[in-house]
Amino acid sequence: MKDLFKEDLQVINVGLTSFGEVVAREGGTVLQIEWSPPGQGNREIGKKLAKLVNLPEVEKANQRAFKNYLAAQPILESVGAAKAVIPNMGERMILHAGPPVSWEEMCGPMRGAITGAILLEGWAKDLDEASELAASNEITYEPNHHHAAVGPMSGVTSPSMPVWIVSNSTHGNKAFCSLNEGLGKVLRMGANSPDVIDRLKWMGKDLAPILKSTLDRLGGLELKPMIAQALQMGDEVHNRNAAASSLLLKRLVPVMVKTDIPLDQIAAAVEFIAGNDHFFLNISMAACKAMLDAAHNQPGSSMVTAMARNGVEFGIRVSGTGDSWFTAPAPKVNGLYFPGYSIEDAAPDLGDSAITETAGLGGFAMATAPAIVKFVGGSVQDAFAYTREMTQITLGLNNALSLPVMDFSGTPAGIDIRKSVDTGIAPIINTGIAHHKAGIGQIGAGITRAPMACLAQAVVALADRLH
Amino acid sequence: MKDLFKEDLQVINVGLTSFGEVVAREGGTVLQIEWSPPGQGNREIGKKLAKLVNLPEVEKANQRAFKNYLAAQPILESVGAAKAVIPNMGERMILHAGPPVSWEEMCGPMRGAITGAILLEGWAKDLDEASELAASNEITYEPNHHHAAVGPMSGVTSPSMPVWIVSNSTHGNKAFCSLNEGLGKVLRMGANSPDVIDRLKWMGKDLAPILKSTLDRLGGLELKPMIAQALQMGDEVHNRNAAASSLLLKRLVPVMVKTDIPLDQIAAAVEFIAGNDHFFLNISMAACKAMLDAAHNQPGSSMVTAMARNGVEFGIRVSGTGDSWFTAPAPKVNGLYFPGYSIEDAAPDLGDSAITETAGLGGFAMATAPAIVKFVGGSVQDAFAYTREMTQITLGLNNALSLPVMDFSGTPAGIDIRKSVDTGIAPIINTGIAHHKAGIGQIGAGITRAPMACLAQAVVALADRLH
Repeated sequence: MKDLFKEDLQVINVGLTSFGEVVAREGGTVLQIEWSPPGQGNREIGKKLAKLVNLPEVEKANQRAFKNYLAAQPILESVGAAKAVIPNMGERMILHAGPPVSWEEMCGPMRGAITGAILLEGWAKDLDEASELAASNEITYEPNHHHAAVGPMSGVTSPSMPVWIVSNSTHGNKAFCSLNEGLGKVLRMGANSPDVIDRLKWMGKDLAPILKSTLDRLGGLELKPMIAQALQMGDEVHNRNAAASSLLLKRLVPVMVKTDIPLDQIAAAVEFIAGNDHFFLNISMAACKAMLDAAHNQPGSSMVTAMARNGVEFGIRVSGTGDSWFTAPAPKVNGLYFPGYSIEDAAPDLGDSAITETAGLGGFAMATAPAIVKFVGGSVQDAFAYTREMTQITLGLNNALSLPVMDFSGTPAGIDIRKSVDTGIAPIINTGIAHHKAGIGQIGAGITRAPMACLAQAVVALADRLH
Repeated sequence: MKDLFKEDLQVINVGLTSFGEVVAREGGTVLQIEWSPPGQGNREIGKKLAKLVNLPEVEKANQRAFKNYLAAQPILESVGAAKAVIPNMGERMILHAGPPVSWEEMCGPMRGAITGAILLEGWAKDLDEASELAASNEITYEPNHHHAAVGPMSGVTSPSMPVWIVSNSTHGNKAFCSLNEGLGKVLRMGANSPDVIDRLKWMGKDLAPILKSTLDRLGGLELKPMIAQALQMGDEVHNRNAAASSLLLKRLVPVMVKTDIPLDQIAAAVEFIAGNDHFFLNISMAACKAMLDAAHNQPGSSMVTAMARNGVEFGIRVSGTGDSWFTAPAPKVNGLYFPGYSIEDAAPDLGDSAITETAGLGGFAMATAPAIVKFVGGSVQDAFAYTREMTQITLGLNNALSLPVMDFSGTPAGIDIRKSVDTGIAPIINTGIAHHKAGIGQIGAGITRAPMACLAQAVVALADRLH
């Protein structure tokens, strides 16, 4: 023991850095291990977590859930009107992003999108009348997620809107998502001016039938190989879909020009798709929803199967806790803002698009999309670090979705609420940012995280179910 | 001095590693500096090189050459028949890849491509007659590079073939390249069966007019932003052109469907382009040729303006030495071979496509295309290392062509023969590999290097010109 003190100090310091700093100041060598108490030091949560860790029931359920997620084969099957294809879609029902929220509580962009959708449906003659109707009891609001659907940003899906139909050929479940309108002044961001409504009308009347006819002739498109290819081309298929949108167009166009639809309509459709680098986003989201629904409802599983925001609350769902939502206030995003805007103008985090991160894409696959840091902020090294960090809170790697720059390792997928609460590492999310007022639209993009409170609640609920 | 020997040995070892190994074995710390004598130890070359290093005349000429290369703006202008648009194209002239070579010396795939081209032109009725004609004095053979043109692999360009016309809007020079036929059994790889010839006939009769009509309506396409975008999407635009080909199609199709060409012809053209991930290669090559010709003929400049192989010899041209070729035997490529083939079956290195590396793309930009190692071999770390290594032998970075994964640094460009001969680092090249016999086609792909002998000869010639 005496000999030890004659040697130079070599110390491993766990947790609070200040202890290590003292040693370093005195000339010792310090290896700092990052650690913080599980559940952010909350004793109750820590105890529930301890019950779940290494529990065979949870481990087995997670294996089943993760296996189903990996085995899912999302196929882009067709396009149809929401009211015709989405299960339990009511006549005067409007679906929205995130966990349940009432009209009174909704954020500006969601209200803007809903009044726009009411105009699109022809339920009101102007925005004032639409707002009045929206606030009445005549409209039913439900989350997309309650209907096997997802929607970016406000996520507003009204009965006449065309939606992508993605089927999981392995397990037979389907998932739905609206069609992408482009960037800027668009309904999903809360804009509802006449040009926005006109574009949506054209999408329903012209674009959707062309896409349906093309997909019918193609007999569907396998989405996993397309997403895998896009990952090799610098997309993370959440905020960067440039490659995937091109790959999709390349598959659609040769068939599209052979349909018997008038050429000027085809030309307009091609121009629209070719001009929208985010066109694939909504397909990516539906594919992720289809893969994750296959992993949902495994009793005992601690795997997250949905992360979604309604602009007020951030909510998650977990495979082993059924249809419960675990919510916390949605954060504002400290991202890159378009000129003239700042975080002061931002709505809190919004949209179902975090379904991509839940499936191991988006922020989780950011290493493969270094070019995205010009859009969402941060450095290229950050992008690598996010992907590496997410391997600490996930059940495994999805080798069908490999990241060349990480030596072709699979993307980290299957968020385990136990690992997240234990390490204090919250899931990372790339996201667009909408203006907090209705009618304006997108004002930036950035990187945010799921609130730890959602994951901690889920740990408690799962532990309570199992004991 | 005595004190020094009491301390632990800490040694910097330059050159031969064996000296350092002795120190390391005795417990000392060794920092190994890689170094070898300039000109591979050849005293004559070393002396010539010494004359050129830091010579103001060379430095200034290089600044001019590199500035021109950076300032060049290649525009995809149109498509036309070789005989109508390529300067000084003779009536019975066939252009080929690499430095000059006679029919007697040509490798198998080049002979195969030439006899195929003779059939295409209708100068002979079968392959035997074509071979006889090819060996007679009736056909003139000249390098593409003598006509502001380039061609991949055998590079065979005959009078009726359609070629891309790329103009450099900054300096007014033009460059030309044939249209890409796809992979596998293709003329450029030496195949010449009836299906190969039929495809070429269709390309001249149907495809070329559609492309011309589309480009006319577009008023040309700026290629540098398109290449820059493709680099952000994992292409190095030599052996990987998946993104660039998609981006091109996305620009062409919306206009193509508006031309008054019959829809079934357009459908066939779209299908052909959409099915060929290498379609952009020949455009990339013409763009590089246009940029490098702008840097050519700067008296005193040691910048390489062409690297090209004819399957027998590897040749380079240097800005300050005019139209001289500096040649050495073309190496065989130790790459990844298709099943059933090996290096025994390979023709030596072939094609003008190393013009992409000469312009800082291809192997020089490999860091941005990690997925390519599955095609050309090596590891992802190798891909990064090649790009970093090439910064040691180049005049600068091309910031218009940035590599996200290298923190958005520009790609290393402007090979300086002095730096290459001084460091012993030869330019890296990604390449396809053809079978050594005529008529077979591609059998693999790999990574190779320019022979140092070419660069050393150029150093001697430039030094002799300047003294």
